[in-house]
Amino acid sequence: YNWHVIPNIDGHNPDAILQAIKEAKAVTDKPSLLCCKTIIGYGAPNLAGTEKTHGAPLGEDEVAGARKKLGWNYPAFVIPNDVYAAWDAREKGTAAEASWQDKFNAYQQKYPELAAELLRRINQKLPAHWQEKSKSFIQTANREGESIATRKASQKALNQYGALLPELVGGSADLSESNCTHYSLSKDINREQPGGNYIYYGVREFGMSAIMNGIALHGGFIPFGGTFLVFCDYARNAVRLSALMKQRVIYVYSHDSIGLGEDGPTHQPIEHASMLRLTPNMSVWRPCDVVETAVAWKKAIEHVNGPTALLLTRQTTPHETRDENTLNQIERGGYILKDCGGTPDIILIATGSEVSLAVQAFEQLTAQGKKIRVVSMPSTDVFDAQDAAYRESVLPAAIRKRIAIEAGATGYWYKYVGLDGTVIGIDRYGESAPAKAVYQALNITTEHIIQTCGDYL
Amino acid sequence: YNWHVIPNIDGHNPDAILQAIKEAKAVTDKPSLLCCKTIIGYGAPNLAGTEKTHGAPLGEDEVAGARKKLGWNYPAFVIPNDVYAAWDAREKGTAAEASWQDKFNAYQQKYPELAAELLRRINQKLPAHWQEKSKSFIQTANREGESIATRKASQKALNQYGALLPELVGGSADLSESNCTHYSLSKDINREQPGGNYIYYGVREFGMSAIMNGIALHGGFIPFGGTFLVFCDYARNAVRLSALMKQRVIYVYSHDSIGLGEDGPTHQPIEHASMLRLTPNMSVWRPCDVVETAVAWKKAIEHVNGPTALLLTRQTTPHETRDENTLNQIERGGYILKDCGGTPDIILIATGSEVSLAVQAFEQLTAQGKKIRVVSMPSTDVFDAQDAAYRESVLPAAIRKRIAIEAGATGYWYKYVGLDGTVIGIDRYGESAPAKAVYQALNITTEHIIQTCGDYL
Repeated sequence: YNWHVIPNIDGHNPDAILQAIKEAKAVTDKPSLLCCKTIIGYGAPNLAGTEKTHGAPLGEDEVAGARKKLGWNYPAFVIPNDVYAAWDAREKGTAAEASWQDKFNAYQQKYPELAAELLRRINQKLPAHWQEKSKSFIQTANREGESIATRKASQKALNQYGALLPELVGGSADLSESNCTHYSLSKDINREQPGGNYIYYGVREFGMSAIMNGIALHGGFIPFGGTFLVFCDYARNAVRLSALMKQRVIYVYSHDSIGLGEDGPTHQPIEHASMLRLTPNMSVWRPCDVVETAVAWKKAIEHVNGPTALLLTRQTTPHETRDENTLNQIERGGYILKDCGGTPDIILIATGSEVSLAVQAFEQLTAQGKKIRVVSMPSTDVFDAQDAAYRESVLPAAIRKRIAIEAGATGYWYKYVGLDGTVIGIDRYGESAPAKAVYQALNITTEHIIQTCGDYL
Repeated sequence: YNWHVIPNIDGHNPDAILQAIKEAKAVTDKPSLLCCKTIIGYGAPNLAGTEKTHGAPLGEDEVAGARKKLGWNYPAFVIPNDVYAAWDAREKGTAAEASWQDKFNAYQQKYPELAAELLRRINQKLPAHWQEKSKSFIQTANREGESIATRKASQKALNQYGALLPELVGGSADLSESNCTHYSLSKDINREQPGGNYIYYGVREFGMSAIMNGIALHGGFIPFGGTFLVFCDYARNAVRLSALMKQRVIYVYSHDSIGLGEDGPTHQPIEHASMLRLTPNMSVWRPCDVVETAVAWKKAIEHVNGPTALLLTRQTTPHETRDENTLNQIERGGYILKDCGGTPDIILIATGSEVSLAVQAFEQLTAQGKKIRVVSMPSTDVFDAQDAAYRESVLPAAIRKRIAIEAGATGYWYKYVGLDGTVIGIDRYGESAPAKAVYQALNITTEHIIQTCGDYL
């Protein structure tokens, strides 16, 4: 792989290590790998060289023996003054910081706008007109009412928000065309164009996710990267670290259910939406149409203290009509999309591509005089973070006839429907067929919702 | 890696491929890798060589053009007789099968016991005295009442069941000592001892899981392999394939919660137990003591149509006392471990290391005259598969004051406690400290259970 490798360094010999570091620093056209040979638990008279020094304390006698062997004659936790002085970097650090600050002050005087922009990005602030322009985009999307796949809606959102956010760094694990992550302002990063903003990660979901963690930790950029939802399995560990480290990394997971159709069970996520929701600090959005997708992207960008997963359809989803007030509720994660007059008999809760099935059931049942409410719940974590009064207004505790509908594992949804509720979902693996046929075969249909309502009424 | 590599084969030239296969077959001391150079969508006049031929149908014109270019003059789905005849392997296959059967019949006559044993293993049957001996082991464990970590209880179970099951093939991803997967009859597999039954997989959770899938698909063996629960993330994809392919692979996941202590949040699973439960066909057991661990292993071995995950503690768990009837209920996945007379006011549902906290709360509250039931729920999927009458007897629909306790994500448990219930769990990352201190800090305590009961009563 064209590394500069220094093998067989005696890892217990400081001079040998220093020599290797000097040698490595002299090589400036490639990365260096220093291979130090060491003995585990070096110095411990009886346990050195065994796995017993890895996971358990050495014990008093071994520690005493190791001190003797290493010529370390100080009490526990005492650092001799000469060692302390040799490692004291405060003066050097203060000088380095002051020098950097002088340089930045000069830059700021010469280029006040660029300096302000740099500080904005490093401090994770959004541009001045962000709120105004993002809201305007969402309103336009609501007015235009286009019916397209939410992965395409995601690309539309990127076209808009991308123009406001030069700090976006996109990419995909070899699925740019399918994830719709490449947008109008994407400039590929390569040898000729190191200043681009789009990375072709290859079929490397783990590498992509880990690199995005690094970009986020560096600061000044907002990384986002795409793959199919089911392939988040290949990156679970790195995705979990985004969440554990509370980094703003945006995962664009398209092909989010059996609705992807022909690729079949290996490609059809079942448990993944719930798995991501159960991962602490991870915000998850599964929007139902262009409008919710625009809101999901806005919330992902504004969510600076953790990652967001956007779960998007391959297949077309219909636009849902909303008045201004309903539109403004989307960002609360869960909201009343359709309602009856008075107290509903049944609440339907749905996400993503299943919202339209719930709305169709609502329309048919409403025409029959039934009292139904449809709650669209694109983000359970954002909904859970709302105040109790709002949550009660959407899902009143007294209404127990509840049906959750999601083309995925059912277990998590009892949190919202309780012991008297029903979950219409999928607790098995999918099938390979066109999307509509798979939905029919696995009984994720308007008819099934209407029938379940009938059982209640 | 010491492969025999044949590069640059023209992948569109059958003769070149045949030649390469012959060359590869002649090399018998290493595996061969044949690298065929091909053009994607070869033959399609306008789309060949582009990604457009990967995921979408070619369309009529391109298909017609490709047929012309490839000289294929037959209608769609028609296979010419000469091609069909050349690929017809029925005669050859019948002869091969008959020859194998003759060989096996001769073997069976000469070694009737060995042949019967081979057929038993291949047909996934358990040995004649399996039920009797496994039950006797479970009863002994219940009588002895030892209090040890469930990972150690797992090793005890292996010592017993292993003696009955020569088809077990164990291993660990570099954590044999910690997972307690190496047992009294383990014989390491290596160059000198290819007939062993224990594989040192190295730090390769994915490789281990994928290899176990292969062993299970081959048949005749029962593979099991260990790692820490949190590291199942590194193998999610292979673990999911065990489940999708319904293979009997046994995952031994020790260090199953914050109870692992000092290694801290990167090593402490939170969402993992629920994630595995939501994965279709995966059976999950989180036993609370030696006895439940013995039952969990028995059920894992008897579960021939899918994988099982055994979630085991690092820390000691106390033995729970049970009468004969209670003992027999464990294999139903969830059962009444402690009960009051008459109808309970509150049901506590707990798994694994949290069962003892629930039992302590039960004892204190019972002493105060409260009516409490403790349900131990080591396997939710096995419990869910019981008949409705049994489930109702354990968790009566009318009793809504329910508290689930598990040192992990809470979301899944509302399935059992409903909208009126409470889940005592952990919806954040853990902390590095001794197990008891972490439990205290994250409020997974008997006091918290008692206080929550107080709120209900």
